[in-house]
Amino acid sequence: MPDASPQRVTLMDVAKRAGVSRTTASFVTTGRTDMRISADAQERVLRAARELDYRPSLLARSLRTNRSQTIGLLSDGVAADAFAGDMIRGALAAALLHEHLLFIAETGGDVALEKRLIQNMVDRGVGGFVYASMYTRRIRVSAGMRSQPMVLVNCTTRSKIFPSVIPDEHEAGRSAARVLLQHGHGDRIVLVGETPPYVMAAVERLAGISAVLRESGLEPAGSVDTRWWPNPAFEAVGAYLAQGHRPSAFICLNDRVALGAYQACQVAGLSVPQDISIVSFDDSDLAGWLQPQLTSVAIPHFEMGRRAAEILLSEDLVPKTHLVPMTLHERESVGPPSVRRRRRAGSVPPDG
Amino acid sequence: MPDASPQRVTLMDVAKRAGVSRTTASFVTTGRTDMRISADAQERVLRAARELDYRPSLLARSLRTNRSQTIGLLSDGVAADAFAGDMIRGALAAALLHEHLLFIAETGGDVALEKRLIQNMVDRGVGGFVYASMYTRRIRVSAGMRSQPMVLVNCTTRSKIFPSVIPDEHEAGRSAARVLLQHGHGDRIVLVGETPPYVMAAVERLAGISAVLRESGLEPAGSVDTRWWPNPAFEAVGAYLAQGHRPSAFICLNDRVALGAYQACQVAGLSVPQDISIVSFDDSDLAGWLQPQLTSVAIPHFEMGRRAAEILLSEDLVPKTHLVPMTLHERESVGPPSVRRRRRAGSVPPDG
Repeated sequence: MPDASPQRVTLMDVAKRAGVSRTTASFVTTGRTDMRISADAQERVLRAARELDYRPSLLARSLRTNRSQTIGLLSDGVAADAFAGDMIRGALAAALLHEHLLFIAETGGDVALEKRLIQNMVDRGVGGFVYASMYTRRIRVSAGMRSQPMVLVNCTTRSKIFPSVIPDEHEAGRSAARVLLQHGHGDRIVLVGETPPYVMAAVERLAGISAVLRESGLEPAGSVDTRWWPNPAFEAVGAYLAQGHRPSAFICLNDRVALGAYQACQVAGLSVPQDISIVSFDDSDLAGWLQPQLTSVAIPHFEMGRRAAEILLSEDLVPKTHLVPMTLHERESVGPPSVRRRRRAGSVPPDG
Repeated sequence: MPDASPQRVTLMDVAKRAGVSRTTASFVTTGRTDMRISADAQERVLRAARELDYRPSLLARSLRTNRSQTIGLLSDGVAADAFAGDMIRGALAAALLHEHLLFIAETGGDVALEKRLIQNMVDRGVGGFVYASMYTRRIRVSAGMRSQPMVLVNCTTRSKIFPSVIPDEHEAGRSAARVLLQHGHGDRIVLVGETPPYVMAAVERLAGISAVLRESGLEPAGSVDTRWWPNPAFEAVGAYLAQGHRPSAFICLNDRVALGAYQACQVAGLSVPQDISIVSFDDSDLAGWLQPQLTSVAIPHFEMGRRAAEILLSEDLVPKTHLVPMTLHERESVGPPSVRRRRRAGSVPPDG
C-alpha cells in the first residue's frame, strides 16, 4: 500500500492520541500480554491506530517474529568516498550488537534504481533502512523511501519525515575560528573553498566561523574561491599568494583543500605554521600525514553510521535531527601569527 | 552437514567422473529437461554425484528457484580501508547486473564471528560469498568458509580450494622498474618500504623489480626499511638522505610511503623529478594530489570486486587463481637521472 501522507504515523502518534505511554501502545499493537493493560486503554489504542491508519513497523514485526533481523544501508555513493568506510563500519557495529545483518547498496542518485533496490531488500526481509548521503545535504524523498522505516545519515529533507543524523557543522565552524583566535589571530584570517548554498557543510561551517569572528568584532579578511580538491586549491591559493596577499591564517573547508594550500605555501616559500597557520575540516587520514600535521575538525563518520543504525533498531523514528559533535583535533599547523606582514607592510596590499 | 574434505566437490568433478560436459552434468543435477540427454549419461552423472557426495551449490539452487538472489561480501576489514570502497562498488556492480543483492559484513579477523556471520547470511538466503582481504595475503580457511560457494579476492589459501582473484603484483613490480630504466636510471635505484615475507604484495613487487633489473645486469642500489605509512617513511627516508645517499630514483612500495619520501626530499632540498625520480604502487587518490603528481602502478580494486562477484555468479568455482592486471599510471614524478651525484661524488658514500 503506497503511503501518500507526508509523514509516517508512528507508534508515538498512536500513543498520544490514545492518551497512553508509548510502551503501553507498543504492547497493545504487538499483542503482547505480559503487561496488565486495562480493557479501556487497549480499546483506545486500537481505535487510535485505526483512525490514524497506523501500520506497525516492518522492523518491529521482524524483531518480534525473529525471522529476518536485517537492515539495509542505502547510499547515493557512499562506498565511493574514501572516508565513508567508517560510516559503514559504524552501521555494521550497531547492527551486529543487535544481532542484525546489514545489506548495502548504492543508488548512484538514480530514483528508479533506488525504488527497485528498496523493494528487493524488503522482499528479502529487510525491515528498515539507513539512507546515507556522500556529503552533507538536503535530499528529495522518493516514493520508495517514504513507505519504509528509515533513518537518514549525513542528509535531511525539507519536510521532516525521518530522523536524521548529521554532523554539527555549525559548531565545527566555531571550533575552527576559535582555535585561531586563541593563538592570537584576528583580522588576517582568510577562508579557502567555495561555499555553494546547496552544500550544507559549507554553509554551516561558514556561519559558525563568521559567528565567532563577529563575537570578537572581526570578520574574515577575504576568501579564496576553489573547489574542494587539492589541485584546484593549489592553483587558487598559489594565485592568491602570488598577488602578494599575506594572511596570518587559512581556514580550509576540507583537508584536501588544505593539502593544496600547503603545496602553494611551499612554492611561495611560506612555512606552516611559522609564516601562516592552517586549520581545516574532516580530520581524514591526510591530516595526520601532512608535514607539519594538520589541525582539523573531525567528521565523526563511524559515530554517524553507528548512531543511525541504533536509532533505526531502537525504533525511535521520531522525525527529528540528531546532531553528532565534531571534535577539533589539534596538531601542529596552527601557531601564533607571524609578524612578517608588518615587516613587509609597504609591499603588500590589504587582505580582503 | 559439515564438510571435512579438503576440497569442495564441484560440478566439474562430477562431469569428469561421468565422462560428460559440465553443461550436461548441470542439466542433469538441476533436473532441467530442455536438453536431450541420453538415459545412460543421466545415470552416469547421478552415480558420479552420489559417489563423490556432490551437493548442488546453494547458489545454483537459489538461482533456479529465484527465491533469494543474494550474495555476501565478507571481509577481514575491507570497509576500513580508504581504497577498498572501490572493491565493494565493483562487487555491487556485478551483483546488480545479475539482479542480485549484496550483504556486507566484517569479521575483523575473528574466526568465531566469521562462522556466525556466514551462518546468519545463509539463514537469510545468501547463496555464495566473496571473501575479501584488506591487503594481499595468504589466509587460513575456516570451517565456516569451507562449506560455502566462495570466491576469494585479494587473498589465496595454501590448499587451493576456492577461485581467487588477486592483482598481478609481480608484473606491477616489473612495470615500476621498467619505467625507470626507460628514463635512463640504472645503478642508483633504491627501494623504500619493508618487505615482510607474509605480505604477498611486498614479496611479489620486489621479485618483479629484481627480475627486470637482473635482466639488465643490475640490482637495487639499496633499500630503506620502513612501514608503509607516510610518517615512518618520512623519518626513514629523511635519515637515509641525511647520511649523504643520493639515489637517482626511489621505488616506494605504496603511495603513502611515496608521500613520506616527497616530504623527506623537500626537507633535504631535493626536487622531484629533477633531483630524484619517484615511482610507487596503488595509484590511490593521493597519487594525483601530490605535487608533482606521482607515477604509480594501480591496484584495480573495482575490477577485483567485480571479477570476484562475476566468477561467483557464473558458478565458475574451479579453484584457480585469476590475476587482474595492474596498470602503470605515468604522471610527473619520473624523469631522467640527475647528474648531481657526479658533481658531489667526493662527499657521498656509495649507495647500498
